[in-house]
Amino acid sequence: MAVITLLTDFGLTDYFVPSMKGVILSINPSATIIDITHDVPKFNVLRAAFILKSAYKWFPKGTIHVVVVDPGVGTPRKPIAIRGRSHVFVGPDNGVLSLAAEEDGVVEAREIKSSGNASFTFHGRDIFAPIAARLSAGIEFSDVGPVTEFQRLELMKPHWADGFLAAMIIYVDSFGNAFTNVTADQLQVDYGTALDVELQSGSRVRVRLERSYGYVPPGEPLALINSEGYLELAVNQGSFADRFKVVSGASIRIIPVR
Amino acid sequence: MAVITLLTDFGLTDYFVPSMKGVILSINPSATIIDITHDVPKFNVLRAAFILKSAYKWFPKGTIHVVVVDPGVGTPRKPIAIRGRSHVFVGPDNGVLSLAAEEDGVVEAREIKSSGNASFTFHGRDIFAPIAARLSAGIEFSDVGPVTEFQRLELMKPHWADGFLAAMIIYVDSFGNAFTNVTADQLQVDYGTALDVELQSGSRVRVRLERSYGYVPPGEPLALINSEGYLELAVNQGSFADRFKVVSGASIRIIPVR
Amino acid sequence: MAVITLLTDFGLTDYFVPSMKGVILSINPSATIIDITHDVPKFNVLRAAFILKSAYKWFPKGTIHVVVVDPGVGTPRKPIAIRGRSHVFVGPDNGVLSLAAEEDGVVEAREIKSSGNASFTFHGRDIFAPIAARLSAGIEFSDVGPVTEFQRLELMKPHWADGFLAAMIIYVDSFGNAFTNVTADQLQVDYGTALDVELQSGSRVRVRLERSYGYVPPGEPLALINSEGYLELAVNQGSFADRFKVVSGASIRIIPVR
Repeated sequence: MAVITLLTDFGLTDYFVPSMKGVILSINPSATIIDITHDVPKFNVLRAAFILKSAYKWFPKGTIHVVVVDPGVGTPRKPIAIRGRSHVFVGPDNGVLSLAAEEDGVVEAREIKSSGNASFTFHGRDIFAPIAARLSAGIEFSDVGPVTEFQRLELMKPHWADGFLAAMIIYVDSFGNAFTNVTADQLQVDYGTALDVELQSGSRVRVRLERSYGYVPPGEPLALINSEGYLELAVNQGSFADRFKVVSGASIRIIPVR
Repeated sequence: MAVITLLTDFGLTDYFVPSMKGVILSINPSATIIDITHDVPKFNVLRAAFILKSAYKWFPKGTIHVVVVDPGVGTPRKPIAIRGRSHVFVGPDNGVLSLAAEEDGVVEAREIKSSGNASFTFHGRDIFAPIAARLSAGIEFSDVGPVTEFQRLELMKPHWADGFLAAMIIYVDSFGNAFTNVTADQLQVDYGTALDVELQSGSRVRVRLERSYGYVPPGEPLALINSEGYLELAVNQGSFADRFKVVSGASIRIIPVR
Repeated sequence: MAVITLLTDFGLTDYFVPSMKGVILSINPSATIIDITHDVPKFNVLRAAFILKSAYKWFPKGTIHVVVVDPGVGTPRKPIAIRGRSHVFVGPDNGVLSLAAEEDGVVEAREIKSSGNASFTFHGRDIFAPIAARLSAGIEFSDVGPVTEFQRLELMKPHWADGFLAAMIIYVDSFGNAFTNVTADQLQVDYGTALDVELQSGSRVRVRLERSYGYVPPGEPLALINSEGYLELAVNQGSFADRFKVVSGASIRIIPVR
């Protein structure tokens, strides 16, 4: 059973995603194809990289993950495949694969050398889907093409300054929960501790660290360590992002209230 | 061939739904996973319960239906599995499974006792998907955990009053068709009969009971008995809900015009 | 391995699409079901026909494509199945299947004669999904019903007039790229050639024919021959449709600048 996942910014309204699936099934009819998401905001490489990093590890070992968020399609940027310790990643060499591949452990990366009749504008269908299908059908990884280096994304790391933890919002989910780049290890406070969160605007929100949303009344803000291990800012049954005007990429300061 | 369906309010823009699918395939690689929908409005338990009731019965016997619309995640509300006569239902004990399970015929319900390393905030991935996958792979239903009671949703039933049928709108679909809770049996009028529908605002719409949308000109309102057996208010190639400002949960009165 | 694709205007928020999938799996548990899209604007037969034509050919030979964009459901319009040279197409007889079927090469078309307990309003679930599943499970195509004629869509063809190519916009994708009905053969200009595009409003946009989006700076308009072989008007990392107020169906004139 070969599993291939797809992650793109193509949306679901066009024929782009199903064309990729058709190509895969034409090469390997027994492949199981799973959508990660196709609703990445157009060209948002960082968000796609974060989503891939959060999702890939739950799939069976040997799963092949295809990512097509590719503002440089048709220009000389390289198409690549990265073999990690447990997973394979396929996509453009713009950093979108790097967060997941580095977490998985990079074994080798190769530049995809395809047969040459690819369109200039739809490499998802003409380059990435075919190589994923062929890999799932058993070709050697070395058949992908020559060994290559690849681009890596660098994420800002949180650091303690004068009584506060300087951090940033790295992801806002569809509930409006705002993920920070702070992990439980870095924060080192107990459940029940109050935190002042200073937003980029300078305004402050006081929250308490709780185990889950339902521990505060509906409509109340809180903080929690989420299922990815990050400090998350949320409103029970509401949207932290909408209420406090928080977007991905914004700087914040976390001040534990002792 | 084990079929597992997923119904959540997670949306499709995040990594939540594919993480659940990855977990399922890691436990049972041969499971067939089908999405019911992930676009339930956040925390709308009643709508999710209605969608499940409308969809589950078309799947093969033995299908396992996982529902995660769960405002109480991480609080002491129970995770449960219900074995019905033909289907299995897995989700939080907040009533979301009850309409479908009761229609199918409840054999037994059990509280899910999981291994204990679940996150506090993502039970879809850490509790519900794993138990569904393990059931699909053949564990005994009694291995889920101890027998339990479960919460049931009560829906208002339509009733005849002084010349009108007091009823409500229970569902508005993406075409803008408004489903009432009135069944053909309760209405007992023939095709071609005119009906006055008094909306919550007090205004009235006259419609005729037709077999399908195309029996009135485009833009005209009509009533029909829909594919779920309910009296439905519609506009041919238009939206009844938008035009007459109707929302799910609204009271209405149906007055047959003799 | 039987593949069945689904293309509808049902959206993904209701129970309509999963009900169709449940019906298919109940008849043929080993069918592989792939969504083309369910986000066709309601009742837009032409757009659905174009999406089907662009997607079907990438699927394995023998794939069965079910299309339900059907403003006439429940009226006497015929449900049909068309056997093409390599693919099978199932849907209402309103032209939605014709662009793909004609490209594939029509072998025969048959009217679907179903068992008679179909609802009046949900033929996707009660007529089209079942016949697709039965075909995928091996019934003879002649068992579908009697041979029939079917409706065809006629698309305006571009033509050269006094120094310009009169054409139209046939598709706008979710990136805002505008596909014209002009093919590379008809245009016969080299990469690097400047083109003036006269929009329906009378205003003109000058673009250069490039190989792909990334050959012009972000925010700049360009033209290219897209992966379907059509002349496409685009803005690198932007939306041509939004910026120049272009919609599907609009007339345009292409004037090569010598």
